[in-house]
Amino acid sequence: MKEITIIGAGLAGSLSALMFANRGFKVTVFEKRPDMRKEEISAGRSINLALSERGISALKRAGIDEDVLNEVMPMSGRLIHSISGEKSLQPYSGREGDCINSVSRGGLNMKLMDAAEATGKVTFEFGVGCKRIDFDNNTLTIENDNKELKQVKFETIIGSDGGGSYVRLAYQLGGVRRFNFSQQFLDHGYKELVIPPTEDGGFRIANDALHIWPRGTFMMIALPNLDGSFTCTLFMPFEGKNGFEDLDSEEKVQSFFEEYFPDVLQHMPTLMEDFFTNPHDKLGTIKCFPWAIGDKALLIGDAAHAVVPFYGQGMNASFEDCRVLDELLDKHNDDFALTYAEFEQVRKANADAIGDLAVQNYYEMRDHVAHKDFQIKRDIEVDLEKTTNYNSKYSLVTFCDNVGYAEAKKRGELQDEFLLDLIDKGEHVGKSSNEILELINKNIKV
Amino acid sequence: MKEITIIGAGLAGSLSALMFANRGFKVTVFEKRPDMRKEEISAGRSINLALSERGISALKRAGIDEDVLNEVMPMSGRLIHSISGEKSLQPYSGREGDCINSVSRGGLNMKLMDAAEATGKVTFEFGVGCKRIDFDNNTLTIENDNKELKQVKFETIIGSDGGGSYVRLAYQLGGVRRFNFSQQFLDHGYKELVIPPTEDGGFRIANDALHIWPRGTFMMIALPNLDGSFTCTLFMPFEGKNGFEDLDSEEKVQSFFEEYFPDVLQHMPTLMEDFFTNPHDKLGTIKCFPWAIGDKALLIGDAAHAVVPFYGQGMNASFEDCRVLDELLDKHNDDFALTYAEFEQVRKANADAIGDLAVQNYYEMRDHVAHKDFQIKRDIEVDLEKTTNYNSKYSLVTFCDNVGYAEAKKRGELQDEFLLDLIDKGEHVGKSSNEILELINKNIKV
Repeated sequence: MKEITIIGAGLAGSLSALMFANRGFKVTVFEKRPDMRKEEISAGRSINLALSERGISALKRAGIDEDVLNEVMPMSGRLIHSISGEKSLQPYSGREGDCINSVSRGGLNMKLMDAAEATGKVTFEFGVGCKRIDFDNNTLTIENDNKELKQVKFETIIGSDGGGSYVRLAYQLGGVRRFNFSQQFLDHGYKELVIPPTEDGGFRIANDALHIWPRGTFMMIALPNLDGSFTCTLFMPFEGKNGFEDLDSEEKVQSFFEEYFPDVLQHMPTLMEDFFTNPHDKLGTIKCFPWAIGDKALLIGDAAHAVVPFYGQGMNASFEDCRVLDELLDKHNDDFALTYAEFEQVRKANADAIGDLAVQNYYEMRDHVAHKDFQIKRDIEVDLEKTTNYNSKYSLVTFCDNVGYAEAKKRGELQDEFLLDLIDKGEHVGKSSNEILELINKNIKV
Repeated sequence: MKEITIIGAGLAGSLSALMFANRGFKVTVFEKRPDMRKEEISAGRSINLALSERGISALKRAGIDEDVLNEVMPMSGRLIHSISGEKSLQPYSGREGDCINSVSRGGLNMKLMDAAEATGKVTFEFGVGCKRIDFDNNTLTIENDNKELKQVKFETIIGSDGGGSYVRLAYQLGGVRRFNFSQQFLDHGYKELVIPPTEDGGFRIANDALHIWPRGTFMMIALPNLDGSFTCTLFMPFEGKNGFEDLDSEEKVQSFFEEYFPDVLQHMPTLMEDFFTNPHDKLGTIKCFPWAIGDKALLIGDAAHAVVPFYGQGMNASFEDCRVLDELLDKHNDDFALTYAEFEQVRKANADAIGDLAVQNYYEMRDHVAHKDFQIKRDIEVDLEKTTNYNSKYSLVTFCDNVGYAEAKKRGELQDEFLLDLIDKGEHVGKSSNEILELINKNIKV
């Protein structure tokens, strides 16, 4: 293999381009959108994201972690806003320094493209869509902005073209004989809104936490940006009362925010414009298999396993794909067939796990966050993490990049079950962290 | 609504064309294959199928049941062939006359097309594929055999174009904003083989049963045809030992049949030709939702809910779709929006149920059929059906067209669980059918 063809210059495509270039390969990346470094790209994608250990570990492997971490906003926990305006901080972990990092999607993507180009081995072609892939004859039909079609040969294709992947569609339309595929959408969608900086460029609310306004069937979250602003995301049903289709007038939006988000309304001076200008979009989980066609093609990132955003792991899972792919190329001395085969075996179970965890967390964030036993469990786990080597499910998923998602899910669920049962029986009362850890270790075998 | 556009002239499309014509609608059916009444169509679809109550009930509503039932081979049970050549008949039900009917797919399809055309209201256009559907502007782009494209207007589309439905793909590609969709394939495929008639046109093996040769990870079945032949279907893994890819020489096929199907090998003189000429094909389950787009489009049959063949219900479920659709048009006075909306609500749960039952039966037929407790349960259930109004899960699914698949599945599974538990404890011993029925009715509430 001499040359790599990558479809999609998003986060996964750009990082994998950089990693392939670092291995010495020549890389061409086709991206159907324009170059975001030259043109402002319309909204519809999340503006900021939470970067955590798995993502950082992959960036480190590509030698770009420091550059990225210079421009993030660390968040040490969830700051829960009650409807009456009370705030409570739930730390993500009991361990000092464990935080997730709000990062600009666009800024990060541009950094990755710049770094890939700087290797001298990567060419990005923008405004070029993928129209047909003939896997038998290694031929790709691309279309430029003028609707001109061109056939190009490829050695191997990396399909990193996101949740709406064309490469995956080509698998479904005959590229793979028995292509298992599912796409499942939530009844809820999301819309992005803004809390701008203060006039002197300061933050209007705490800038070291991820803000959550949980309200049962809907919720809002806010992540800080470097410029003093926050990007808010409103999650709610498409249909029915307090759903996107219902909120169709300024009066309704105003009274909805007054009723449910009174403490933040004052900080959202552009609410009406944002609400009626910004689209609301769908949230879905994609699972499929196989991901590889011999050494000819491999799906990575959202193209292989799009997840809903409620565990903050979509980007991190995609970056972890890039890291694992690079490690397997080491292991197999750049034998692509062996690498792709092991990659899809190793990553599939982990991708399924984070996909399921993210859907579960959607219900948990809406409903359980305020539940009493859940709070007690969190307190016990924070204490355990402070004083022992214990990791909660959230920590296993978010901070332990040496544990796969599948194992994190399994162990995390057993721990949750055990602790909730202990609390239910009142047996946690009066026990020290070490005593509880001993019980956990005795009872849970993964 | 004045005119109906149907995509696909298979079993569901042809029966629904007939039913729409019977209601007075003008109908155009586009079918991408040639007219099977004029040209022999290549293999790859199952040659015969098992017609049971749900299918018959729909044919009756269309007034074509007698004509169809004149040309079927009734099968009263499963005739199990052991590897040593012993045969045992498992009746499908304890009730006299309960049987399923082997029917020629092609013959039935042609009868339905003839009957639809005879109404004077249905036009079939063959060799016409569907290339694009613009649901917003009610425009369909069709392509004839000469690759000429034409745009036609439609009022409403019935997507009855099977498991590989183009109409469903158009939903996925943007026709429906949040289209839940899954296609899951088994590791096993199927290949059709033949037991020809004797020289004087007789049957070589019993013609009143469905023959099964269960062999663990693979199996063969045979259904009788009117002409004295049987169509055999060999189900086996694609890969690995005793899989399709492994059996790549006449020697291997010969010794495979000698080892596992010795009693039938003598009846298969064209085995080698059939084995290496006939394709082996995949087996998959398709689930999706929604099925309807307002009053503009509706998926029915395999296009909406393809199932694996192990419950013999694919065609019956499709025909039941046609019956329910026709009944709902009665109920809603031909209001298509109301009809489609209620149809997808009512049918989705039933389609999911038969899809799941069919996959479960795949494991049951391979593995459980020979299990001792399973045999005792069958015997108890046959007795119950002989002497009481009890219906086993199989009977609920196959013979009770007044019970939906979802209810049949739920009740059937509870009955199975209860009876297997009873047998496990030995509590069935010495009890009369009436006593067992009383226990079942006391313990099972659906």
